[in-house]
Amino acid sequence: SASKLPDVKTTIFTEMSLLAQQENAVNLSQGFPDYQADENLLKYLGDFAKEGYNQYAPLFGIKELREEISRKFSSQYQVNYHPDAEINITAGATQGIFTVISAFVEKDDEVIIFEPAYDCYEPAIILNGGIVKNVKMLYPDYKINWTEVKNLVSEKTKMIIINNPNNPSGKILKQNDIEELIKIVKDTNIIILSDEVYENITFDGKSHLTLAKYSELKERTFVVGSFGKLLHITGWKIGYILAPEQLMNEFRKVHQYNVFCVNTPAQFAIAKYLQNIQDFSQTSTFFEEKRNYLKSALSETPFELLDCEGTYFLSAHFGSISDMQDKDFCYWLTKEYKVATIPFSAFYKDKTDEKVIRFCFAKKQETLDKAIEQLIKLK
Amino acid sequence: SASKLPDVKTTIFTEMSLLAQQENAVNLSQGFPDYQADENLLKYLGDFAKEGYNQYAPLFGIKELREEISRKFSSQYQVNYHPDAEINITAGATQGIFTVISAFVEKDDEVIIFEPAYDCYEPAIILNGGIVKNVKMLYPDYKINWTEVKNLVSEKTKMIIINNPNNPSGKILKQNDIEELIKIVKDTNIIILSDEVYENITFDGKSHLTLAKYSELKERTFVVGSFGKLLHITGWKIGYILAPEQLMNEFRKVHQYNVFCVNTPAQFAIAKYLQNIQDFSQTSTFFEEKRNYLKSALSETPFELLDCEGTYFLSAHFGSISDMQDKDFCYWLTKEYKVATIPFSAFYKDKTDEKVIRFCFAKKQETLDKAIEQLIKLK
Ligand SMILES: CSCCC(=O)C(=O)O
Ligand SMILES: CSCCC(=O)C(=O)O
Repeated sequence: SASKLPDVKTTIFTEMSLLAQQENAVNLSQGFPDYQADENLLKYLGDFAKEGYNQYAPLFGIKELREEISRKFSSQYQVNYHPDAEINITAGATQGIFTVISAFVEKDDEVIIFEPAYDCYEPAIILNGGIVKNVKMLYPDYKINWTEVKNLVSEKTKMIIINNPNNPSGKILKQNDIEELIKIVKDTNIIILSDEVYENITFDGKSHLTLAKYSELKERTFVVGSFGKLLHITGWKIGYILAPEQLMNEFRKVHQYNVFCVNTPAQFAIAKYLQNIQDFSQTSTFFEEKRNYLKSALSETPFELLDCEGTYFLSAHFGSISDMQDKDFCYWLTKEYKVATIPFSAFYKDKTDEKVIRFCFAKKQETLDKAIEQLIKLK
Repeated sequence: SASKLPDVKTTIFTEMSLLAQQENAVNLSQGFPDYQADENLLKYLGDFAKEGYNQYAPLFGIKELREEISRKFSSQYQVNYHPDAEINITAGATQGIFTVISAFVEKDDEVIIFEPAYDCYEPAIILNGGIVKNVKMLYPDYKINWTEVKNLVSEKTKMIIINNPNNPSGKILKQNDIEELIKIVKDTNIIILSDEVYENITFDGKSHLTLAKYSELKERTFVVGSFGKLLHITGWKIGYILAPEQLMNEFRKVHQYNVFCVNTPAQFAIAKYLQNIQDFSQTSTFFEEKRNYLKSALSETPFELLDCEGTYFLSAHFGSISDMQDKDFCYWLTKEYKVATIPFSAFYKDKTDEKVIRFCFAKKQETLDKAIEQLIKLK
């Protein structure tokens, strides 16, 4: 029988990470840290397993972790989420996103997404019979054209997916973007899925504007978060979902039959670790140093750098180096210069190619140095 | 907007576990061990985290674990699965099942399931627009009526879901069941989803007949397995899926956008632990002792016990004790006798009540003794 997802291939992140391995290249493609997470956190994982925390967690997630998330949102954003009714732990942010989409999108429902878009939104929409309506954000500033969004909204619009800070562009939403979004959704039943997995990685004193902060949005919004990004443990696969109770109830109906619950010792380890974090801005500080280091080194090359306001991705226009297609350029750069990156065209349905590629700087100094040593040879 | 799953409530397992807690009752309801898993396995988890295995695993799962699964199937069943093309690690068996159903079931596709049925099949089918066709297995022997199955099969039949050994009845498929199944599916495009999470828990010298062993079935079958059940770590949420390459490719398209990958340190810990297991029959031996203990104690009560051939569930008819509905009986037993169990009606779409309840015996001696002490008071 025919495929439900005939156009889906292996993700670009898997493709480029494999190529990096084959070519023995520095891997600045897939977004993950190559340094060690805090040893206390790692120790807690082993401790909780030894102490016997190895059976099913509740389907909401363990209470201790939900309470820490509630505390984080109230201290960081002065926003309240009830740990029982409004917070759920997920097997990574991706599983949260897939489950939200599966719980709400039905045949012929329209979902608005903004491109460049992280690659997991569209297949989930299509799998559920929905229709993707894409709004393009373009080089060099990747601003949202809100008039275009307004014109796309109709009775059929079930959901709008926001990704802020944005992967791959590194842009963050501004106050006026939020106001435009509020104008568009008020008096509608549109649900917002707000992928905020890089919320704790913003730079230059700019702070993250969570949609949860705006009551006109909070009432209709799923906020998605990721401990992988916050704590440098992408492989633990622990994320969370925040939403008002009525939306959360629908989410949980699907969640309980998708994964039922999430790795128990990892949840306990993270909960214990978070108890000692008073100030979540240290993650931004940590990554800002890495961004600055890579940015200053690359400014010596012919790349034209995007302004990276958040995320652990710095992106660059390579037009003055080559007129290859961006994906070909990434292959060439991996093979010839031994540095793997991600082409922006992979984030557009129609493979829009503006000659921009993405570098992940969540890497140890030594890795960044090895990449820089290669990249400065570019003419 | 309307719910996509209007009839779904919190699972019976969550409901009864919460009731057990509230009532301070012995919890023989939800299926999970209350004793410690092997300390080596637990130690490995901490070790791998400390050694730095904390970032994204490949979407197939780590090679080391897929190779161990391949080895297990070839030594235990003389069946070959290729570690790369035909094996994928999942965030528990449930996520594997949900993902298989999501990858194949489309609007108006029919899926045949056998009741009593584990509760995660139906919502996944409905969520994808499919239609559930249920075949009832009934007290006392819970045999499949294959004529009924044959009559249900049509052009619209996309999938048949088998659960063997069966939760909750504890019955296992016999050679003649397999032959009937082969007759029904040959010359069709029907996909089989074979939930074999209790494959290593069979008793009285009866061995598990994996559908993978029959070439006429293997070519169209997804086999689902669970390390939670095999290694007494239900909270680690690591399972796996086996399927021929073409089916696996479709599975992976959805899997990579549902969870992308699965907890890394847990995968490494399990892989290392499996390296030292030569004989997987020890799990059956371990549970057979517990089954025998509970069975012999309950034979002193008015319960009429089902013949438990596999799984860690022993079930019983309570008709000579009460004519309450089975769920009411479970509530009563929890409140008055402080033993929580699961009613069989929860496993039937139409809540068929034959006065049968399920006891989980994956419990330490002390827990079983506490339950038995109460249950022998029943008249
Ligand atoms: C799950 S692999 C992709 C990791 C990531 O978030 C990225 O590279 O954008
Ligand atoms: C995921 S909770 C249900 C556990 C289980 O397999 C059962 O009790 O049948």
